[in-house]
This record gives sequence, C-alpha cells and structure tokens, in this order.
Amino acid sequence: MSDNKRILSGMRPTGPLHLGHYFGVIANWLKLQEDYDCFFFVADWHALTSEYSDPTRIKGFVPGLVKDWIAAGLDPEKCTIFQQSVVKEHAELYLILSMITPLGWLERNPTYKEIKGELVQKDLSTHGFLGYPVLQAADILMYKPFAVPVGKDQLPHLELTREIARRFNHLNKTELFPEPADMLTEEAKLPGLDGRKMSKSYGNSIKLSEPLEEILPKVRSMKTDENRLRRTDPGNPDICNLYPYHKLMTDPAKLPEIQEGCRNASWGCVDCKKVLMESMEKFLTPLHERRAACTDERVAEILEAGNKKATEFAMKTMDEVRSVLNLDF
Amino acid sequence: MSDNKRILSGMRPTGPLHLGHYFGVIANWLKLQEDYDCFFFVADWHALTSEYSDPTRIKGFVPGLVKDWIAAGLDPEKCTIFQQSVVKEHAELYLILSMITPLGWLERNPTYKEIKGELVQKDLSTHGFLGYPVLQAADILMYKPFAVPVGKDQLPHLELTREIARRFNHLNKTELFPEPADMLTEEAKLPGLDGRKMSKSYGNSIKLSEPLEEILPKVRSMKTDENRLRRTDPGNPDICNLYPYHKLMTDPAKLPEIQEGCRNASWGCVDCKKVLMESMEKFLTPLHERRAACTDERVAEILEAGNKKATEFAMKTMDEVRSVLNLDF
Repeated sequence: MSDNKRILSGMRPTGPLHLGHYFGVIANWLKLQEDYDCFFFVADWHALTSEYSDPTRIKGFVPGLVKDWIAAGLDPEKCTIFQQSVVKEHAELYLILSMITPLGWLERNPTYKEIKGELVQKDLSTHGFLGYPVLQAADILMYKPFAVPVGKDQLPHLELTREIARRFNHLNKTELFPEPADMLTEEAKLPGLDGRKMSKSYGNSIKLSEPLEEILPKVRSMKTDENRLRRTDPGNPDICNLYPYHKLMTDPAKLPEIQEGCRNASWGCVDCKKVLMESMEKFLTPLHERRAACTDERVAEILEAGNKKATEFAMKTMDEVRSVLNLDF
Repeated sequence: MSDNKRILSGMRPTGPLHLGHYFGVIANWLKLQEDYDCFFFVADWHALTSEYSDPTRIKGFVPGLVKDWIAAGLDPEKCTIFQQSVVKEHAELYLILSMITPLGWLERNPTYKEIKGELVQKDLSTHGFLGYPVLQAADILMYKPFAVPVGKDQLPHLELTREIARRFNHLNKTELFPEPADMLTEEAKLPGLDGRKMSKSYGNSIKLSEPLEEILPKVRSMKTDENRLRRTDPGNPDICNLYPYHKLMTDPAKLPEIQEGCRNASWGCVDCKKVLMESMEKFLTPLHERRAACTDERVAEILEAGNKKATEFAMKTMDEVRSVLNLDF
C-alpha cells in the first residue's frame, strides 16, 4: 500500500461556512489537495442523523457548501468532490458493517455521549444516531485511504473505524480494508467576534460568503483586550480577541508593528480594526470572486464528475466486499 | 389504495426447507400467488445478522432456497421472486429509516429479546441485529404492500413497521407509506419426527428435497402414541405424532378409516406408517420433479427477472422518498 496517497474527509451540509471552518479545516484541505489524492464529500446522509425531523433544509445547503469549498480554493482538477447520498454503496457498506459492530463500542463512543448531551432539544436516541460512527466507518473504508485528517476530538471516531476494519478483516480472514492512520491536523483556532468559540448558533461568526459591507460593522464592534479601558492604556495582543485574526489574515511582516503599537498604546483598537478590515478585504475578495464565478450549473458539473469517480471506486470496493462475504452473485 | 393487491414476504437462506416450512409458510404462499400481486424475497442480508461471523455459507443456500420454492409450486409467472441484496435500495431505505427509529422501540421488541436469548452461542449484541426490524420495515415499506402474511409471533415486528411508517409520514407530512395490514396466517403446525418442533437443528425434519429412500427409515422410526405399548392396545390419533402428517398429506377420504383403525387397534403403527409413506411419496414426487427441472440456469433467470422488477419498483419508491426528504438532486 506504499503507493496509496488517498485521503478522505467530509463536511455536513448544515449551513454556510464561516472563517472558523476555513482556518480550522479547509486551510488544511488546500494543502492536502496539492500532495494527496483527496476525496472530499458532502455528508448529507450524516446531516439527516440530527436534522431528520426537518430534512428539507439540507438540500439548499448542499450546493452552498460546494460553492464555499470552491470559493475557499478547492480545485476539482486536483481533488474529488462528491455527494454521499448519491453513492448508494455507502448505505450498503453501512448495512454490512452494522452487522458486525457491537453495540458496546457505539455506546462507549465519547462523541455520542457528548453530542447527545449538547443537542438536548432534539431526540437523538435513534438507531441511526447511535450508528453514526458506523456510517462514518463505511464512508472512510469505502475509499481505503491510507490516512484521514482529523482534529483531536475526532480521534475516538477514527479509532472506532479502525476497530471495525480489523473486525471485518478478522471475521472474514481478509486484508481488504487497510486501517487508516490519523493525520492529526494542527487546528488554527479562530475565536468568534465575542471571544467565544466561533459558531453559527452564537451569531459571532463571519461567513465566507458575507459581503464586506456587512462585515465592517461586525469588525467595528469586535471585542478586544478588556483591560484596555482608555485609548492611552497599553494593550496585550496575547489576550486580545482581535490579534488571532491578524495572525491568520494580516501580512506577517506587519505583525511586529501591530504588536508594538498595541503594547505601547501608540495604536488604538480602532486603528487595529481598520488594518484588520483591510486584511480581511484582501483575504476575502478572491474568495468572493471565485464564489460568484461558481454558478449552480458549475456545482452540478463538479458533483457529477466527482460522484462518477467516487461511485466507480465504491463499486469496486463493494465487489470485493461481496466477494469476501460470498454475497456476489 | 383500493386497487393495491401487493403482498410481500421473505425467507432467510439458511438451509434447505423442510415439511415444517412447507405447511407453515409456503402452502399459504401458494394460495396467495393466485389472488395477489406477491413479492417473495430471499433475505440474504437478514441472514447476515446472525451468520455474520461465517457468511460464506449463505451463498450456497440462495439458489437452494429458490429451488425449494419452485419445487413447492411457486410460479415465477404469477409472483415476483427476488434477492434482497441485489436491490441496493433496501440498504438506502434502511439507512434513512434508521435515522428516525428510536432505540427504545427496538430494545422493547420481544423477538429481539427472545432470539438473543435463544442464540446464546453467537454474539448478537450488534448494531445490525438490534436494527433487524428496521431493515424488515425497509423491505416491506419499499413495496407499499397493503398487507403482509404473518404468523402470530411476528405481529410485534409488523406493528413496529407500521410505527416506523407512521413516524416517517408524520415527520415529513406525507402519506407516502401506507400502513401494511397483517394477514394472519393460520399456521398448520407439523411436529418433528420426534414430536418436538420440526427444526433442522433438532435433526427431526424431512427436507423437501430429501430422496424417498432416505425418508423411509425416518418414517419407520417416527414416534407415535406412547401409550400404545402393544400392537393390541387401542391408540389415540389426537395425541399421536403421526396423525398430523396424515391430516396434511393423506387423502382426506382415508382419514376416518385411519382414525378408526387406530382407536380400535385393527391397525398397527406399522400399517399406519406404510400408508403415510405412500402419501408422502405422492406428495413429494411432483416437488422432486419440479426441483430436478429447475437448473441453476433457471434459478439465475428467475432471479434476474424478479430482481429487475423489484429494482424498478424500489427505485420508484426511493425517488419519492428522496423527494419528500428533499434529498433529490
């Protein structure tokens, strides 16, 4: 498997992407698409696990997610972009892996307990939600990736995928599924405008597709170093909520000046925000341009090509699975 | 839905059928195929739920099961015979229904508790085994049957299917899935050769495909009325293990004579068994002939035609499901 450079990752279509997604996940994907054979998928069936009582919203979010990806710089010439629910083989592999996955493994899954606790307003004690990591294992193993880019909090999920792969291989005396390694992503955490975690539901995010004129007032009212009460007070970039934005979007050559100006109070927060707004404009303009160029027709084209490639791969894997299980007729 | 005459039923391919299966299930199917639009399927994915640790056996049993059906008198011109795992849409609907099925419904399922208790030598605490009734609901609802032929012990399963249909319809404000009624089958219970329930695992069965010369010694050593110790003792057909066989396979006109001969000891058990053997020969010979005529090629033909018809129906249903969920792209 030394020539295996496949990597797989996906996102749920649950709404527009914001800067937190960009720096936390997509920035890493942009690097990966240069060096690996990447499969990135729209996890619309996964979205069903939590949105099952009002699934109609998912549909609108699918093309939007693809546009956000293209805007961010994913290149369909370099990576495969596809939609999970179109590749029916994922459901078939889910069914088959579901048969061999002990309930205990799923009940112990820390993410299951955590998400269930977080989303108390939804009834998530369903068979599908409990089986979420089984569907994830099917998504991953289908493409036999050598690795999966993950954040620390997803490590238990990936370990479960490896356990399921091992169990399938062991029960069927095969080596069909290689165990995917974890490619731990250094997450660039961008705080929300108010200093809490950036999240759509907190209303403290900046969307990748947001017009600059809507961003401006948001930046103006951003929270900064709370100890700097007067313009003449020295500030501290290490604890200021604005500085992480500079670190990620402002020309690195300018950072020493910003730091110094804050610490010796030669800059005020208003100056600092002005520079940030310029940086953001510079950063977001090409994204907005790429997004505007990505029509619905283009999205359909991208998905059609990606779905085709993914389906071909998945059909091959399922032929092997059926052959191993003696379910090939 | 008044013109809906569709009925669906299936069997797991876990080994050759015996007389117990014939009189308990198939005899009823033979009547149904005359009056209804019947879909009968080989439930090979279901067989995986319990046979997952050695699935290679399933494959050999699939053509055998179809041959047993044809031998018994199912007519592919009158009914649709298909194989579950070929119609991938079943896996897709399983996945979708899995999302809306509360774990509590599955954990309360009496058959789940019972089978789990019976099959203690297998580890059945798996996600797939718990979800068995969800897969069954998918199998059934896919074809929107107006009714499902069931035995009493399967009533809770069918009720669960109806509950899942109701929940899907309710959550999605649709009437896509009609609730299938139960068509309670009067089960003709045939005891095993030793008086216990006829079962492959007890070694007390007569297979539909068993050669007559192998059946003869089995009939000779069948258990009869235990109170009839001597040839001159009167017997009692009401408690004799042989008499149910006569009731099902011997010419009804002869039954009064058999009863009387037993009660007044003018017949011995040996005489009785001789008549039964004749009846069995008469009963089984056409089955054996039909089975011999049903080649592997014929099985492949039958399944190909049935799978095609089932797949077309299933694709139509899934188009509707995706449209309701807004997952149609």
